[in-house]
Amino acid sequence: MRYGHFDDERHEYVIERPDTPLPWINYLGCEDYFGLISNTAGGYSFYKDARLRRLTRYRYNNVPADTGGRYIYLRDDEAASHPTDPPFWSPTWQPTRIPLDEYECRHGLGYTIIRGKLAGIASEICYFVPLGESLEIWQLTLHNDRRQTANLSVYSAVEFCLWDAWDDATNLQRNLSIGEVEVDERTIYHKTEYRERRNHFAYFACSETATGFDTQREAFLGPYRGWEAPKAVESGQMSNSISVGGQPVGALQVKLRLGPGERKTISFVLGYHENPPNEKFDPPGSQTLNKRTVRPIVDRYRRDGEIEAAFQKLRAYWSGLLDRLQVRTPDPHVDRMVNVWNTYQVMATFNLSRSASYFESGIGRGIGFRDSNQDLLGFVHLVPERARARILDLAASQLPSGAAYHQYQPLTKRGNHDVGSGFNDDPLWLVLSVAAYVKETGDWGILDEPVAYDNTPGTEESLYGHLQRAIRFTLDRRGPHRLPLIGRADWNDCLNLNCFSDMPGQSFQTTTNKDGLTAESVFIAGLFLIAAAEMAEMARKLGRD
Amino acid sequence: MRYGHFDDERHEYVIERPDTPLPWINYLGCEDYFGLISNTAGGYSFYKDARLRRLTRYRYNNVPADTGGRYIYLRDDEAASHPTDPPFWSPTWQPTRIPLDEYECRHGLGYTIIRGKLAGIASEICYFVPLGESLEIWQLTLHNDRRQTANLSVYSAVEFCLWDAWDDATNLQRNLSIGEVEVDERTIYHKTEYRERRNHFAYFACSETATGFDTQREAFLGPYRGWEAPKAVESGQMSNSISVGGQPVGALQVKLRLGPGERKTISFVLGYHENPPNEKFDPPGSQTLNKRTVRPIVDRYRRDGEIEAAFQKLRAYWSGLLDRLQVRTPDPHVDRMVNVWNTYQVMATFNLSRSASYFESGIGRGIGFRDSNQDLLGFVHLVPERARARILDLAASQLPSGAAYHQYQPLTKRGNHDVGSGFNDDPLWLVLSVAAYVKETGDWGILDEPVAYDNTPGTEESLYGHLQRAIRFTLDRRGPHRLPLIGRADWNDCLNLNCFSDMPGQSFQTTTNKDGLTAESVFIAGLFLIAAAEMAEMARKLGRD
Repeated sequence: MRYGHFDDERHEYVIERPDTPLPWINYLGCEDYFGLISNTAGGYSFYKDARLRRLTRYRYNNVPADTGGRYIYLRDDEAASHPTDPPFWSPTWQPTRIPLDEYECRHGLGYTIIRGKLAGIASEICYFVPLGESLEIWQLTLHNDRRQTANLSVYSAVEFCLWDAWDDATNLQRNLSIGEVEVDERTIYHKTEYRERRNHFAYFACSETATGFDTQREAFLGPYRGWEAPKAVESGQMSNSISVGGQPVGALQVKLRLGPGERKTISFVLGYHENPPNEKFDPPGSQTLNKRTVRPIVDRYRRDGEIEAAFQKLRAYWSGLLDRLQVRTPDPHVDRMVNVWNTYQVMATFNLSRSASYFESGIGRGIGFRDSNQDLLGFVHLVPERARARILDLAASQLPSGAAYHQYQPLTKRGNHDVGSGFNDDPLWLVLSVAAYVKETGDWGILDEPVAYDNTPGTEESLYGHLQRAIRFTLDRRGPHRLPLIGRADWNDCLNLNCFSDMPGQSFQTTTNKDGLTAESVFIAGLFLIAAAEMAEMARKLGRD
Repeated sequence: MRYGHFDDERHEYVIERPDTPLPWINYLGCEDYFGLISNTAGGYSFYKDARLRRLTRYRYNNVPADTGGRYIYLRDDEAASHPTDPPFWSPTWQPTRIPLDEYECRHGLGYTIIRGKLAGIASEICYFVPLGESLEIWQLTLHNDRRQTANLSVYSAVEFCLWDAWDDATNLQRNLSIGEVEVDERTIYHKTEYRERRNHFAYFACSETATGFDTQREAFLGPYRGWEAPKAVESGQMSNSISVGGQPVGALQVKLRLGPGERKTISFVLGYHENPPNEKFDPPGSQTLNKRTVRPIVDRYRRDGEIEAAFQKLRAYWSGLLDRLQVRTPDPHVDRMVNVWNTYQVMATFNLSRSASYFESGIGRGIGFRDSNQDLLGFVHLVPERARARILDLAASQLPSGAAYHQYQPLTKRGNHDVGSGFNDDPLWLVLSVAAYVKETGDWGILDEPVAYDNTPGTEESLYGHLQRAIRFTLDRRGPHRLPLIGRADWNDCLNLNCFSDMPGQSFQTTTNKDGLTAESVFIAGLFLIAAAEMAEMARKLGRD
């Protein structure tokens, strides 16, 4: 079965039918704001950290599969005149799953375009995150291919996550009580916990004045109904509901009249915004969200040409990255992979280090220490200045013993206590990534950068000292054969020779180790030889050998 | 709007339409096996502990609401002959939500009966947990009210939880890899992790030989489909799929021919079973589940009359409990509440202590120390011997300081480290519950029972000593006004005068306290006066004052 093909001209992967065996996804965003998006508009968004600053809800392992996303519904407000056509549908197939006459998804570099056609109405939605912004744009273009005028309602819908995605997924009692929103004519603001202890909020805005809205999930969907057939879309009636607790959603209705052959573009903006702590409310002393700081951002993307300009800027950014390394080989498949898709993949890894995907639910882990040092070998030539910053972040989560937290949380950059340390190969990878960085850039200065241990001010030492401790950590921890002790595990995370997990529910990654003075790792021994050679070479060049 | 009424004769609450404002639930089981069941057959089951031994999956806060349950589908295998009737439907309304001609749910004492009628086929399902068993029965009776013979397929379906409900809800990567089942002609066995580190499994059996089955969710539902319209039910074709990883379900198909006016009963059994660790496999040394130990249980409920006998035994058990206290007042509403429903409620609290409900997702907490001591005042006259055991369990989770873990996990009976201690009113409630128990039973001997602290062998002291430490704990922790220090919180769990949570994501219950030597609790002071009076009275009676 063939589901898609590469468009080498545009650097896009084109999916030709919506019901792929599993959702096929793309990543939006490459700075602070990120999104996962499937070929049928499923997925979710977050600011920096998929666990701690989740903007929208997504239900992993749910049925129907891939539930939760960036949903648009189209409704024929004169459905009675077209009795053979469905009265409403999703131009991205999900969540209504009403068969489309035409469908195409294009996963590009940092953007996704989904086209659909049904009942003579053609649609195209371009989803992307502009550079330098903490927001995503959904640009919807509709074209009336009928011979008659079409009177349509466009509905957009997201379900907000109550920020901490872990708590959101598990703590129902709390979820029921804390949701809060505000609404003005074209924008829905999600401000749960803003009054108490947050200075950030989410917003969902439309380029047009909404003719109706809903912010209570139950009001929009109707009781005992799912996303496949919202009551509000079926009936054409929004409730203008205000969520007080419950499940806040952002759903906007826009009415549209399209003459035969007419084309029209509407855009939606979903964003994250922080206010200064002393300017949270407007007027001061009230409990009303200060929106003055965010309005200019929303208004910017209502101006003609701004979205197109932002999109071109994003395309140029990616072209620039691809230009850093281009090869030509006898095999076009190799060229395509090396010149486009591997670079793209490597940058996704730089951005997220596997912390959120359609397999990793974005709540179980942060940025891996080993992972990220390894990844760096792939992207150091693409973004050397960001590689430098990443090395210093990683080193700052190293412990004074030379060991490393196995992961750190991207929002706080602090080591993850739940998983802890004890993967004895971890620190050696830092030596390899630093060596790769220095070879690529010639920036020997990085070795003299002062970096704290465990992010504790006052413990700063040069990065070079950090590397020495990494080497020393291995040398000081050796077993009966004088090979390195494995600790909790080596690169084979599941080996766990020191934790005999015979109890249900024990996590292999976090169970307490039993006596750890015997099990050795041949793998770490091999890694040490490489790291030690790199270290010796750096010491020689610096005259410190 | 009226949704139901009390049937005082049968001690049942009768719900008259399926789309109640929220799911209205009942509790099944009163010993080791428990289930929550809504008026449309939603809910889930577990053995002892809603978090650690969850049998079936339930999706809180999902849409459509109340997804996951004990589902039956009826399919007209000659639907072409009845073109105006739906080809398949749910006799409990959910999950198909196809409107029924008749519907009634009766929540009784430890059982729920759901009746439905559509297309001339009347159905009644009785769900209950037999006394002394770790299983639940679904007894389905069908009656053909048509003038023609009906050829039907009956489908039953549950989705298994991979045991630890917390992990199941959050750890997708792991979920995808670990699922395992076995199937024989009438039974599906769910045995995830059985080979590695469990000796328990779940089973789902039918009184009839199945004509087809599925154990892969995707095979039963079809891709991108939900529970409202499984592909297998729509098509009439089961895949006989074996789940290897993925999402194990238990779905059985039984074909049935019902003459005009004919009635037939089919039963399903969903159960939990443990094998001796040295008899896990059959033959020994293989990786095949030893089913010899469970077959007699399954076979028992296939014998004529066994289900009816078990049901009558359950009804007699509840009658016996109700008989312990009956009042007659001028107000029939008071009588109904005191004589039936308050007793029932109090026993649900004894069994679960709020650890699982449609608000508490069953993964966030165990049995509350304060809660359970309070609850005891309500059930001590109903089950004094079980109240005694509960007191000793609670006391064993007390700490040597006299403080108490705020909660303990029902499976292990050990204190819950995640929530910890520091709710300074907690230990005083133990004094009240013991006093209530002694007053009710005259069992002064309980005060001399040796009980460990923090479940640590070797630390045993008399229960009386535990109570003394509880009193001493309060006396030794007083603030500037000589009133008791509040610690983390008192009965008002959210007061938290010592934790100034200004960081997003901090839990009010578990955040670290700041200096706790100032904030006092007038509430604890009042509680102390009551507890101290009870303690003094007990000391006097025992001649220990």
